[in-house]
Amino acid sequence: MSLRPPFSRIVQKLPPTGPFVPPEAIERKTGKKLALRLGANESSFGVSPLALQAMKEAIQHVPWYGDAENYDLRQALARQLAVGMDNIVIGSGIDELLGLTVRLFLNPGDTVVTSTGAYPTFDYHVEGYGGHIHYVPYRHEKNDLQGLAEAAKQKKARIVYLANPDNPTGTIHTPGDLKSFIAQIPPDCLLILDEAYGEFAPDEAILPMDPSDPRVIRMRTFSKAYGMAGARIGYAVSERKTIAAFEKIRNHFGVNNIAQAGALAALQDREFLQKVVREVAEGRREYDQLAKDLGLSTIPSVTNFVTFNMGSDESARAVINALSERGVFVRRPETPPFNRYIRVTVGTPAERAQFSDIFREEVHKRL
Amino acid sequence: MSLRPPFSRIVQKLPPTGPFVPPEAIERKTGKKLALRLGANESSFGVSPLALQAMKEAIQHVPWYGDAENYDLRQALARQLAVGMDNIVIGSGIDELLGLTVRLFLNPGDTVVTSTGAYPTFDYHVEGYGGHIHYVPYRHEKNDLQGLAEAAKQKKARIVYLANPDNPTGTIHTPGDLKSFIAQIPPDCLLILDEAYGEFAPDEAILPMDPSDPRVIRMRTFSKAYGMAGARIGYAVSERKTIAAFEKIRNHFGVNNIAQAGALAALQDREFLQKVVREVAEGRREYDQLAKDLGLSTIPSVTNFVTFNMGSDESARAVINALSERGVFVRRPETPPFNRYIRVTVGTPAERAQFSDIFREEVHKRL
Repeated sequence: MSLRPPFSRIVQKLPPTGPFVPPEAIERKTGKKLALRLGANESSFGVSPLALQAMKEAIQHVPWYGDAENYDLRQALARQLAVGMDNIVIGSGIDELLGLTVRLFLNPGDTVVTSTGAYPTFDYHVEGYGGHIHYVPYRHEKNDLQGLAEAAKQKKARIVYLANPDNPTGTIHTPGDLKSFIAQIPPDCLLILDEAYGEFAPDEAILPMDPSDPRVIRMRTFSKAYGMAGARIGYAVSERKTIAAFEKIRNHFGVNNIAQAGALAALQDREFLQKVVREVAEGRREYDQLAKDLGLSTIPSVTNFVTFNMGSDESARAVINALSERGVFVRRPETPPFNRYIRVTVGTPAERAQFSDIFREEVHKRL
Repeated sequence: MSLRPPFSRIVQKLPPTGPFVPPEAIERKTGKKLALRLGANESSFGVSPLALQAMKEAIQHVPWYGDAENYDLRQALARQLAVGMDNIVIGSGIDELLGLTVRLFLNPGDTVVTSTGAYPTFDYHVEGYGGHIHYVPYRHEKNDLQGLAEAAKQKKARIVYLANPDNPTGTIHTPGDLKSFIAQIPPDCLLILDEAYGEFAPDEAILPMDPSDPRVIRMRTFSKAYGMAGARIGYAVSERKTIAAFEKIRNHFGVNNIAQAGALAALQDREFLQKVVREVAEGRREYDQLAKDLGLSTIPSVTNFVTFNMGSDESARAVINALSERGVFVRRPETPPFNRYIRVTVGTPAERAQFSDIFREEVHKRL
């Protein structure tokens, strides 16, 4: 090998791959367009017409950098969440905000705690900054709050990650459970509460905001219920000194101006959001019924996806391979015990009908 | 202070602020809309109609994540640059790519070399990852290649940063000069060649690509000549093992889908790009003449901005304050010797006429 600049010590130890294979890569590999794209929990229910209009208009300003302070959006969010503007930071999606948060709090060699089989992108960032991950198994298809809190204590964790509502199970813990959980986490350990799917759950199921607590950072996104995954925009809410620290490391001019305009408009359209949430709930019921018809069970979900229990790793693999052959993109998580599950995004009624037909056929053939 | 999770050791030492005040923050502070926005080297010449159309269409797909592999854009760039697809990584602007590059190559405590008063965002990232910055003064209003190479050797630098064409001077070094420069840099030191303004320079003034050299990484953007600063999309070109390393740490789903579509279309419209480049050249000549009329000098620029020498720090400060009072947003770099300069983006003919009127008045009043 010729002489080359050496990579940093952390990078030298990292594995070569990222967290997910994108659906476009599947299409390129098979040479066929996907028939159904229900594997990334993207919204099948589109974007608010207000957001659509705002984005079209924002294209005219694309020669200008977007506002680095994301002022208007932070102001609107602050009003809606009844917190201060200085309690909010905008990023290009939760993925970016997770990376920044890990960087803010983790020294190389420090430990974080998360559930076995939870969000791979969080793990990716932790490894990327030289951290250690301690995994706590799920318990009865839910995050084990007791186990996570105990591990945080024992391992002297710097960060605990919890998705609530959860992915890939779709389950949720009550605000009461979360309050006890937070009380049990050591005060020098940060809780990242990933609420990417929060809008799909009933308002009363969501922990009220407490922006005075520096031990909790809440993450939200416009990628799911708002239908703007491609725009790459999300936000984090925490105590103001934590939020101020993002200013020291974030990519200040990093958020696309069209995304900013779209998110601001989307936030005003409560009616559209509620309609999406209702339609998604109907789709979940349909998927539950489909499972029942096939003698399968699902995990009770409050999100825009439903996770089907296929009984065994082998069955799940056989069915997902068959679905994949027919151009249906859904996910089978790789980590046990979730490798016996298939996670399906709630599609439109037409997409669900198409999925139902194919799924019934393939399950009947195989199980 | 209540108990709180401690920030990482590096973050604890960082200053509270980011690299630039955005023009929107100036507007909020003064309560007045800017009359002229010529301070961020954004394009006044719009976007290719092909890109505009592609972005409008891409909005329809905003519920879907953009292609994490940025395949189509990388393919088109590879063809245009006559390099491999695996020599190219896409990011949400050069700013993000600079941060990733620093992270790939720098250990905390390592040293980088850059010119005094060069791009503050590079410095921001280096400090953000715990690096030390060794500054080499400009020489006759140009980057001092000899000085940079010597400093790289002496300081055992891991990275040298060079903007070519340069910002804030607008000057360029020839391919021949760059080749000698690269030959002088130690083989274990990476050269970041920031070519954000490369499209404005004549083709023959740009160093040919050599994607076999792991010691050089070239950075390009759609923010300047292509007029897509708000879209946040840029790319880096280097030897394929260096590019592969980005896969270990980059935000895979981080690039906005509308930006991807716009960039791909913009790349096809050579005619539009050439028109922008011609119009910008005309604007530079007009600014040079304006300076001459006022008894001032400019630095010979090949970019979309011209830097006026105001003679002294005090004069520059007085004039920029007066311009600012009248709603004219231009930049006075903070670092000596550039604090006696005012950097003005090339506007449209109408913007230039307006700038010329105000500038003449204020210079006559003060100098």
